[in-house]
Amino acid sequence: MRISELSTATGVPVPTIKYYLREKLLAEGTRTSATQASYDDGHVQRLRVIRALIESGVSIAEARKVIAALDAPPPSLYDLLGVAHAAVAPEPEAGLDTTSAEALVERLGGRPEQCEPTQLAGLARALRTIEGAGFEVPAEVLEAYLDAARRIADAEIAGIPGDSLESAVRYVVLGTVLPEPLLLALRRVAQQIASAERYGVR
Amino acid sequence: MRISELSTATGVPVPTIKYYLREKLLAEGTRTSATQASYDDGHVQRLRVIRALIESGVSIAEARKVIAALDAPPPSLYDLLGVAHAAVAPEPEAGLDTTSAEALVERLGGRPEQCEPTQLAGLARALRTIEGAGFEVPAEVLEAYLDAARRIADAEIAGIPGDSLESAVRYVVLGTVLPEPLLLALRRVAQQIASAERYGVR
Repeated sequence: MRISELSTATGVPVPTIKYYLREKLLAEGTRTSATQASYDDGHVQRLRVIRALIESGVSIAEARKVIAALDAPPPSLYDLLGVAHAAVAPEPEAGLDTTSAEALVERLGGRPEQCEPTQLAGLARALRTIEGAGFEVPAEVLEAYLDAARRIADAEIAGIPGDSLESAVRYVVLGTVLPEPLLLALRRVAQQIASAERYGVR
Repeated sequence: MRISELSTATGVPVPTIKYYLREKLLAEGTRTSATQASYDDGHVQRLRVIRALIESGVSIAEARKVIAALDAPPPSLYDLLGVAHAAVAPEPEAGLDTTSAEALVERLGGRPEQCEPTQLAGLARALRTIEGAGFEVPAEVLEAYLDAARRIADAEIAGIPGDSLESAVRYVVLGTVLPEPLLLALRRVAQQIASAERYGVR
């Protein structure tokens, strides 16, 4: 199909498709003339994935890394998860104290060596931000966060499809990034429900 | 204290403090001369809060709304939660289909009328993004998300301090926004632990 048809099939405007081509997020089509190229269903699928990543707040540079992991998966699923995480995590700062983060890893039932340095750093930064604001998460709430994170992760890892490496790769890479806005939205909606119940509204 | 001392006390550079003053995130100090103003502990506290909001990815415009809610809390805690949510949620798009979002609200034990339109819209958008990527959250995983969201929200709402309206406002406004990066970081770390256990790494 032509670029205009690719645009119709995906709802992504032609100039945006051209931008993704220039940014190497989307592979070039097959040249059919000096000024035209032909695109296939693979491009449609890939464009949908790119779109969803960008809409989830992933930057162009991060999306490029996620896409690369889809195309050239690392040797094991554990390593793949690391790539997916690294793609969406900022570089760790030098000298960041990860002591509190490591303590939480142990409360999650794990050991710090099981975690990518970028993830430990991300957790440490999240804790520092909260502390920096002079805000304290109550002990029972932190307990609920830890419990929820572990239950969610167990369900997600158990859900990795076993039928093919390709579907496992897709699940791990997209399943890491895409559900984040869903989880946050569900928490907020649940807060409103719990608040309405507690304060007897409506 | 002078602006340079305010900077030392908070670690926020003077030009950044001036930017927050211009953006009306931080109240002006008391004028002591034509070119100098004096700041107090209230400014230190407020600056820490602004810093934490910005580091959590909240925009200047959103931070202004959160700060406004801290200064002029709405009449009830349920309404306050709405303000805190609205401050960090994008405006709902016209014509967004919220049917699937409403179904999830019911699975959370609530009714759509209990939720701010911005929150329903946020949930609908998160679902649309996932669907648009051709990704499907497995039924067991979605169940885990819903269960986790409800447990987290129950613990958070139960944790609203009852000693003063001021501390309740602070808890609701900051407790809505600041823990989001923590929750996401905990999920990723828990994924790595669950993955290491499942694939027998280290």
